Amino acid sequence: MAAAVAWEAGKPLSMEEVEVAPPQAMEVRVKILYTALCHTDVYFWEAKGQTPVFPRILGHEAGGIVESVGEGVTELVPGDHVLPVFTGECKECAHCMSEESNLCDLLRINVDRGVMIGDGQSRFTIDGKPIFHFVGTSTFSEYTVIHVGCLAKIDPEAPLDKVCLLSCGISTGLGATLNVAKPKKGMTVAIFGLGAVGLAAMEGARMSGGSRIIGVDLNPAKHEQAKKFGCTDFVNPKDHTKPVQEVIVEMTDGGVDRAVECTGNADAMISAFECVHDGWGVAVLVGVAHKEAVFKTHPMNFLNERTLRGTFFGNYKPRTDLPGVVDMYMRKELELDKFITHSVPFSQINTAFDLMLKGEGLRCVIRMDE
Amino acid sequence: MAAAVAWEAGKPLSMEEVEVAPPQAMEVRVKILYTALCHTDVYFWEAKGQTPVFPRILGHEAGGIVESVGEGVTELVPGDHVLPVFTGECKECAHCMSEESNLCDLLRINVDRGVMIGDGQSRFTIDGKPIFHFVGTSTFSEYTVIHVGCLAKIDPEAPLDKVCLLSCGISTGLGATLNVAKPKKGMTVAIFGLGAVGLAAMEGARMSGGSRIIGVDLNPAKHEQAKKFGCTDFVNPKDHTKPVQEVIVEMTDGGVDRAVECTGNADAMISAFECVHDGWGVAVLVGVAHKEAVFKTHPMNFLNERTLRGTFFGNYKPRTDLPGVVDMYMRKELELDKFITHSVPFSQINTAFDLMLKGEGLRCVIRMDE
Ligand SMILES: NC(=O)c1ccc[n+]([C@@H]2O[C@H](COP(=O)([O-])OP(=O)(O)OC[C@H]3O[C@@H](n4cnc5c(N)ncnc54)[C@H](O)[C@@H]3O)[C@@H](O)[C@H]2O)c1
Ligand SMILES: NC(=O)c1ccc[n+]([C@@H]2O[C@H](COP(=O)([O-])OP(=O)(O)OC[C@H]3O[C@@H](n4cnc5c(N)ncnc54)[C@H](O)[C@@H]3O)[C@@H](O)[C@H]2O)c1
Ligand SMILES: [Zn+2]
Ligand SMILES: [Zn+2]
Ligand SMILES: [Zn+2]
Ligand SMILES: [Zn+2]
Repeated sequence: MAAAVAWEAGKPLSMEEVEVAPPQAMEVRVKILYTALCHTDVYFWEAKGQTPVFPRILGHEAGGIVESVGEGVTELVPGDHVLPVFTGECKECAHCMSEESNLCDLLRINVDRGVMIGDGQSRFTIDGKPIFHFVGTSTFSEYTVIHVGCLAKIDPEAPLDKVCLLSCGISTGLGATLNVAKPKKGMTVAIFGLGAVGLAAMEGARMSGGSRIIGVDLNPAKHEQAKKFGCTDFVNPKDHTKPVQEVIVEMTDGGVDRAVECTGNADAMISAFECVHDGWGVAVLVGVAHKEAVFKTHPMNFLNERTLRGTFFGNYKPRTDLPGVVDMYMRKELELDKFITHSVPFSQINTAFDLMLKGEGLRCVIRMDE
Repeated sequence: MAAAVAWEAGKPLSMEEVEVAPPQAMEVRVKILYTALCHTDVYFWEAKGQTPVFPRILGHEAGGIVESVGEGVTELVPGDHVLPVFTGECKECAHCMSEESNLCDLLRINVDRGVMIGDGQSRFTIDGKPIFHFVGTSTFSEYTVIHVGCLAKIDPEAPLDKVCLLSCGISTGLGATLNVAKPKKGMTVAIFGLGAVGLAAMEGARMSGGSRIIGVDLNPAKHEQAKKFGCTDFVNPKDHTKPVQEVIVEMTDGGVDRAVECTGNADAMISAFECVHDGWGVAVLVGVAHKEAVFKTHPMNFLNERTLRGTFFGNYKPRTDLPGVVDMYMRKELELDKFITHSVPFSQINTAFDLMLKGEGLRCVIRMDE
């Protein structure tokens, strides 16, 4: 079966004939129909400052159909439509048992592991030599093997070329707003960083009936696109001499009701927190900061009754919650099509990398069967 | 009428004959029956590093009876039992209208103002010369004038010599746990700082059915007293070489479910946040840090789904919520008597200051009518 293999850091993927072993206990073999490219793929492909894990099959934002199931898999049968997710839900650990957490102890994201957790082996081989997995999904392959805990079974009527986006970035931003910031109708919301994740957070603010939705980005080109996502005001921190939090507090007579940070930049995190209203303001951190980053603020900003929370994958439990997100799309509450700015056949997957490296567009969907 | 006047910073209060003018519009004259001493009184009496406001009548933790009401006061009549509060509730501003905030725009605590907000005058005089008010309450006086928005009308059956404590510190700590940290039955809770505020936070954890209640204090003498408040484990950061948050994370297999910080020390705030469990942990800041203090942490601590909130006066709205706290005492759910370690007649008020300066006891109740 064809797969796009990353042989070494930063080199174009190469299309290879790969053997995909049958699923073992608690595993599922999935035929991938559509996959999209996310920054995280590019990040681990570039592998700067990390332990390189190569050769590897990247890819984690996708939609597919169950081809076969291993021993002990009772929830899925061949033909089921599924979204693979880079983090899982075992349904048995303390996190899975908690109503609030989605940080499953067993299947929590692990970017360094290139093998299946069951037997510590890879299911991909070329001439008997292993090719490593990526975050348990490896969707840049016609077929892949995934732990059953990392697969959300969804409505078979849902178009996989659209809902595949819900596997990662879009759910992350959307859930940050809907599940964690939880704006009430009529509230003001600021979104820091207008990449795909930030625009998904903005989509959540639009769906919640935000009265004023303020987009914040260093790149002025982001304004136009953001309008489709409900952006009513745009602030570029570079246009102001005072800190952007002060600008927003002035614009909103005391601060926004909710802020969601989707940049990964520690200063933006501080601004997002300090621009929320005292008494009831809630700020949510989504962006992944570098290892030495520090979040700093005066404790009085908390005492004045502000709340700061972080989220991972928008607090969605993959198996329990993603089917409901797909349903929001089916009911036309959630708009996904506007995130798809490009589409290429599998053979042109490297074009998707080029687009992302140039910062063009939001999501490029890769069609596996062409 | 007799009042204890602070003529200058750090000098013993002196008992004086003071004239207390009648209440003006929206004001109430209250006969104080019991008042207690809190650190905040001592802090503004010492007036270190502040603009001194003297001569002044201190005092803000108290219980009394309405003597007369000014124009426009419809909610209170002479004879009503009331608790004066250093912060108020106008019931009309954005904060009062919000379900979440108690930071009233009109009557929010103001430690520098020594006069009534209505006309900018003091109601206290000696030989025609004004004596300044303190945080709108000035309860070290047989009679005092208070804005109606700073008075909670309570059950007349409630013993004022006990429930007077609910005017400040005890409600602050209790509400931090009950209203903000909101532990569920069976959860683990860490309380940093075991002064009156921290012990009140601990009382909230006990009332919530905390399974394990960990007290943290630099003073080993605090352990014994804390046992009466439900403390199951005591940790002194000085007994450990590693940071106290690591000690607590190990003790609790990943962290406590809730932490409440009642020290005012920025390092304790950081520890309180970093010792809560990922996925669902909530930390609450209560202590007032000094002006240059900085709260610092790695953003990943938030992304792993921890929440940090601050609170002021335990998020209680004085008029709306305090009567219900008094009722919790009347139903014997909340225990107050154990906070009262000393009691003196009004004439010996300086003894209460001495006790607090020596760090002896929790609360000294001052009996005004003796
Ligand atoms: N993409 C995912 O699937 C995913 C999942 C979880 C978390 N995250 C994190 O979310 C963040 C956003 O992801 P993305 O894919 O949308 O990234 P992106 O790079 O497409 O977008 C980030 C945006 O933030 C803007 N920005 C950077 N610094 C800023 C600052 N100081 N102030 C204002 N704007 C600033 C950039 O101009 C850019 O438009 C990243 O940190 C990522 O690690 C992403
Ligand atoms: N008292 C009030 O009415 C009130 C109201 C609102 C807020 N506050 C704030 O709450 C805090 C506590 O008030 P209190 O009256 O209980 O004070 P307190 O001084 O009686 O108690 C503070 C306790 O914290 C301990 N402590 C100090 N640093 C510590 C550290 N690094 N780690 C562990 N323990 C430490 C001290 O040993 C002491 O036992 C203060 O910051 C105060 O400003 C108080
Ligand atoms: Zn789990
Ligand atoms: Zn992703
Ligand atoms: Zn108000
Ligand atoms: Zn006080």
